[in-house]
Amino acid sequence: MNRPDQRLANELRPISFESHIAPYANGSVLTRFGDTQVICGVTIEEKIPRWMKQQNIKEGWLSAEYTMLPYSTLERKKRNQIKPDSRSLEIQRLIGRSLRAGIDFKKLGERTIWVDCDVLQADGGTRTAAITGSYVALALAMENLKKERKIESNPIKKQIAAISAGIYQGKPILDLNYKEDKNAEVDINLVMTSDLEFVEIQGTGEEDTFTKEEFESLLELGREGILSLCKAQKTAIAQAIQ
Amino acid sequence: MNRPDQRLANELRPISFESHIAPYANGSVLTRFGDTQVICGVTIEEKIPRWMKQQNIKEGWLSAEYTMLPYSTLERKKRNQIKPDSRSLEIQRLIGRSLRAGIDFKKLGERTIWVDCDVLQADGGTRTAAITGSYVALALAMENLKKERKIESNPIKKQIAAISAGIYQGKPILDLNYKEDKNAEVDINLVMTSDLEFVEIQGTGEEDTFTKEEFESLLELGREGILSLCKAQKTAIAQAIQ
Amino acid sequence: MNRPDQRLANELRPISFESHIAPYANGSVLTRFGDTQVICGVTIEEKIPRWMKQQNIKEGWLSAEYTMLPYSTLERKKRNQIKPDSRSLEIQRLIGRSLRAGIDFKKLGERTIWVDCDVLQADGGTRTAAITGSYVALALAMENLKKERKIESNPIKKQIAAISAGIYQGKPILDLNYKEDKNAEVDINLVMTSDLEFVEIQGTGEEDTFTKEEFESLLELGREGILSLCKAQKTAIAQAIQ
Amino acid sequence: MNRPDQRLANELRPISFESHIAPYANGSVLTRFGDTQVICGVTIEEKIPRWMKQQNIKEGWLSAEYTMLPYSTLERKKRNQIKPDSRSLEIQRLIGRSLRAGIDFKKLGERTIWVDCDVLQADGGTRTAAITGSYVALALAMENLKKERKIESNPIKKQIAAISAGIYQGKPILDLNYKEDKNAEVDINLVMTSDLEFVEIQGTGEEDTFTKEEFESLLELGREGILSLCKAQKTAIAQAIQ
Amino acid sequence: MNRPDQRLANELRPISFESHIAPYANGSVLTRFGDTQVICGVTIEEKIPRWMKQQNIKEGWLSAEYTMLPYSTLERKKRNQIKPDSRSLEIQRLIGRSLRAGIDFKKLGERTIWVDCDVLQADGGTRTAAITGSYVALALAMENLKKERKIESNPIKKQIAAISAGIYQGKPILDLNYKEDKNAEVDINLVMTSDLEFVEIQGTGEEDTFTKEEFESLLELGREGILSLCKAQKTAIAQAIQ
Amino acid sequence: MNRPDQRLANELRPISFESHIAPYANGSVLTRFGDTQVICGVTIEEKIPRWMKQQNIKEGWLSAEYTMLPYSTLERKKRNQIKPDSRSLEIQRLIGRSLRAGIDFKKLGERTIWVDCDVLQADGGTRTAAITGSYVALALAMENLKKERKIESNPIKKQIAAISAGIYQGKPILDLNYKEDKNAEVDINLVMTSDLEFVEIQGTGEEDTFTKEEFESLLELGREGILSLCKAQKTAIAQAIQ
Repeated sequence: MNRPDQRLANELRPISFESHIAPYANGSVLTRFGDTQVICGVTIEEKIPRWMKQQNIKEGWLSAEYTMLPYSTLERKKRNQIKPDSRSLEIQRLIGRSLRAGIDFKKLGERTIWVDCDVLQADGGTRTAAITGSYVALALAMENLKKERKIESNPIKKQIAAISAGIYQGKPILDLNYKEDKNAEVDINLVMTSDLEFVEIQGTGEEDTFTKEEFESLLELGREGILSLCKAQKTAIAQAIQ
Repeated sequence: MNRPDQRLANELRPISFESHIAPYANGSVLTRFGDTQVICGVTIEEKIPRWMKQQNIKEGWLSAEYTMLPYSTLERKKRNQIKPDSRSLEIQRLIGRSLRAGIDFKKLGERTIWVDCDVLQADGGTRTAAITGSYVALALAMENLKKERKIESNPIKKQIAAISAGIYQGKPILDLNYKEDKNAEVDINLVMTSDLEFVEIQGTGEEDTFTKEEFESLLELGREGILSLCKAQKTAIAQAIQ
Repeated sequence: MNRPDQRLANELRPISFESHIAPYANGSVLTRFGDTQVICGVTIEEKIPRWMKQQNIKEGWLSAEYTMLPYSTLERKKRNQIKPDSRSLEIQRLIGRSLRAGIDFKKLGERTIWVDCDVLQADGGTRTAAITGSYVALALAMENLKKERKIESNPIKKQIAAISAGIYQGKPILDLNYKEDKNAEVDINLVMTSDLEFVEIQGTGEEDTFTKEEFESLLELGREGILSLCKAQKTAIAQAIQ
Repeated sequence: MNRPDQRLANELRPISFESHIAPYANGSVLTRFGDTQVICGVTIEEKIPRWMKQQNIKEGWLSAEYTMLPYSTLERKKRNQIKPDSRSLEIQRLIGRSLRAGIDFKKLGERTIWVDCDVLQADGGTRTAAITGSYVALALAMENLKKERKIESNPIKKQIAAISAGIYQGKPILDLNYKEDKNAEVDINLVMTSDLEFVEIQGTGEEDTFTKEEFESLLELGREGILSLCKAQKTAIAQAIQ
Repeated sequence: MNRPDQRLANELRPISFESHIAPYANGSVLTRFGDTQVICGVTIEEKIPRWMKQQNIKEGWLSAEYTMLPYSTLERKKRNQIKPDSRSLEIQRLIGRSLRAGIDFKKLGERTIWVDCDVLQADGGTRTAAITGSYVALALAMENLKKERKIESNPIKKQIAAISAGIYQGKPILDLNYKEDKNAEVDINLVMTSDLEFVEIQGTGEEDTFTKEEFESLLELGREGILSLCKAQKTAIAQAIQ
Repeated sequence: MNRPDQRLANELRPISFESHIAPYANGSVLTRFGDTQVICGVTIEEKIPRWMKQQNIKEGWLSAEYTMLPYSTLERKKRNQIKPDSRSLEIQRLIGRSLRAGIDFKKLGERTIWVDCDVLQADGGTRTAAITGSYVALALAMENLKKERKIESNPIKKQIAAISAGIYQGKPILDLNYKEDKNAEVDINLVMTSDLEFVEIQGTGEEDTFTKEEFESLLELGREGILSLCKAQKTAIAQAIQ
């Protein structure tokens, strides 16, 4: 097997988090997984959704939105207008669920965290970059809330990262780029904590089937990737809040 | 552990498929997983989507739609109007991908299979009932196409079924009903073939996390469930086409 | 004249009401007028529309919705998305007005009755089947409300049924099926009470004209049909609430 | 019984048709039924709807649209935006069916007649004023087509008018204004030809019921009104095309 | 240079304001700039927009809407449905800003003025006719409010009118009709007060460029036009409120 | 007068253009006017709009879209969903007209240039930054087309830039930031060429009025700003295409 960009099977693309990309946000990061670039912006709203009020729930919430900017793909992607783009909706639901698993909403108080992920360049793995980068933006936003003395203790209880793995030319590989993703026989997305607990697992045979053994080899690769990403997240956060 | 309906941990709810519920469809089934009831209607359109034509792809396609009828829930569920219901969109994408994995679209020829799943009663597991029942409706529709001599050989290449499993009160259980689902700590949905190959795996910690061991115990239960469902599908199809 | 299904001119199709089809609804019925099948679900919401609140009206309301399921027609009917389907809107307005004529909203109290009619199979007369069946579902729902001691006396003050009649091959006939409806020269829909008072009359020359005599012959046939339907409704309600 | 504006029971409001109100239309009329004022504009499009082309129907079509201008009611009426206004849709369907009954579409050729009815002032009976006035605008447009030698003979085969009648304070009255309409116990709309054949009959008990005798007294009044309207239409057309 | 309708370069088209065109409005005018005809209706709502309430602003507001009736153009203009018509939105924003510049909202009190401009015939300059005519309708509406003793003093503080000018065949001309507008090299719209102060200036090279000298010659012409329009407005208002 | 950021009256904010921000676009620039940051992406589509085809126009076109990213404002700005955001539509129409004035569409050939402007941070002047930056992205995209030998000569015929000016605390100032913009008495936006010809002029009294003298002082300031911006554009383009 030969990966198009010569990476080893278990090698991530170059990962980086450029913080403060959108200074008006409470926390923001330009996340790069190789050529995939996602702007992750976290803003805090001092109110909670109506359904929580109606149910008299006195804690916070996190809501995510995901779009691809029109110039993020090789052919211009039209902006969504009225018709729903179901792939985007599915991804933003995943981002929201994933990050909520890491937050203690009682500590957050009656606030809504908005996580906006706008893809600047799409070369595969936009959802994993979005989750991994949004965690960093979220951590920065929580630090800001603490500095502004709006919260007493940090509501983040778990560190969250996400990575893809797949079977490509019969072999398991980590962190697929667009070319690999398009030709992969199996494709999984893992959202995990730094303790290697699962948050979300999504595996698809890409309209075909796959075996238990294939699946397990991908989980194994994924765990390696998650550990590296968590390390990179920690470094980025530390640098940004100095 | 005590399941609300006294089932064993690895016990499915009563499963049934009532065929010909919507006689104008090419194939139709009222699927029951206990109190969950889904109308699965398969209709064949003698044309293919525009994007396939534009790419000059000369084979068939399958497209799925999923809705909950307003009286399917204990509190009336409003019909979707303009705003997209992202949960429904996610489920119908899953139904589509899952069933496409079982079809040889060259054999189908330039036709679109429409799979419509309308939930009549929702007591948990509507997506797994929808996929499992739609497979039956699909099989009946393909038999009809053969009888009408529109196709030479059956385009179905794999038998597809779906089941849920979850961790409930600390124990793994199979085929969760609404009460169990609502209180489960972990929830997975498995789409598999009768050969126990995977088509789709979706696991979520329900905004919390879960361990590798928990996940494996659920996969094990799921496999049992899939085998039982495949047997029930075969019986239903055989009876309906007599 | 020869009706396609050999019925006499004043003969209804086989009529049946299968109750409890959607158990989570307060009342539900699968209504059959021959091959026309409509799911009628009645649910009660413990609040009233905003416009009533604003006008400080302290009584109940009834609102109807009507759709055709995609597999209800010989060619798949696309689900409505954004563009309004004006035929459906017109029918659901008719269903609402018709049933409201039979209810004492003061006795109902500040509640909204939702009547959902989903056509499972469309062979002509879906609106008359919807109204006639919804009356049965409504009666069952009111019995339930009484059992639950939410109301003291039954708010239904009049029994409502609906039937079509038309001029087909020059002769007046009752309860048109799709083939007859498509070729009818005149088409009327009658909503009446069991006392043979009118609730709604809609007559159309199908983009042509008709005479006073033709119209009167259709009213005469319609009255016969209404009496038979009212008898069938009573029987169905009695059986369902045993 | 005392009508609010002192009219006799069988007396129409002052009727007038001011032609050429919108000179760019092929035919246009400002129709007045007392204080009810409707702009009726007829424009001809040299093509037919797609569904006719697809079915290879080589004749013309007529399509109607109806709106209420925001300043037409005592309280400002919001413009429809996205949500469909089902009352308007129902009225425009009625206008379209009614006028199509008067046209020989083979003579019209492959053209679409657009009938736009915009209510400038709404004092009851906007739909009957719209139909009656649109017939005049249509006649003027057909004369123009003949002058421009686009058609050989006039496609209008029947003269169409419409009027309302109702039971008010227990008595049948003709051509209800808003106050009467609001308080009427029964309300019918009749679309008829100058030969007193029916095109459309719509009768409603306004969410109550009415008797056969009441209905017949209204039909009788309606016939009188139709004859007067047809006379007024003829005069208006003759003056406009001098 | 020869204007298509033989006007002098600085000559307005015949201007007229026909008041009370829509009697249910608080003020209404049919405005004519030659063949351009716009219905301007002003209605008063006894409440203010939500955003003002939320910001606790205790004064009035003015909001404008602009549409072209389908029969206003030589080819029928489709009604806007779901997709926004950005030209109309831009014009209605301009009408709103322009008229708000003339009103003292404290004197108006907590009311919303709705200005509806519906183009009956479009021959160029619909936005300038709409603004100029709406001012007249607004003045009539304010007189009515005073008569009804809802306000103490007239909230109008400045008289507002609007006119277009352009470079046509190399020469500056005033008040362009459609033919001139279509072929103009430069096109400006001026909104000014009767004191010749500016409210809005919009100049465009029609996707080309223009010089400072050209621009100044157009401003000069525009000032002449504004003075004539203000005189005509005063006369019309005086006649209408006699 | 004291500007909040201590700038001189005729001083621009720091201007920069960071090219290749979105590498999949044909040309892209992150434009900064002080704290205002706009991503300008230009993509080329090898087809022309339908209306041009229908009119058989055999040349190119340019279309612009403008949005504010949710984290671009101090309070999160909701994404537009169904309701049109009329301010954004107005700005994107301005961007489109302005850039089209600089292009020879015959030289471009039958292609559409898409200009996407997404505001990353909004501190006043987003429309002028968008136009000025898009010109740079456009120039880079045209260079790319030439390199790819899709066009023979550069279709850009004029260099376009845009700047705002306003009366603030009674004095004319250049390039207003948000605080200044919000409190300005008059506000103009100028789009001009490097030869100081006008492309678009938009001046508003911000719902009040302004004098001829004020307007002229702003035009004077604007010309200074345009010259500086054109110089900065040239430098940025030269560096990017080295």
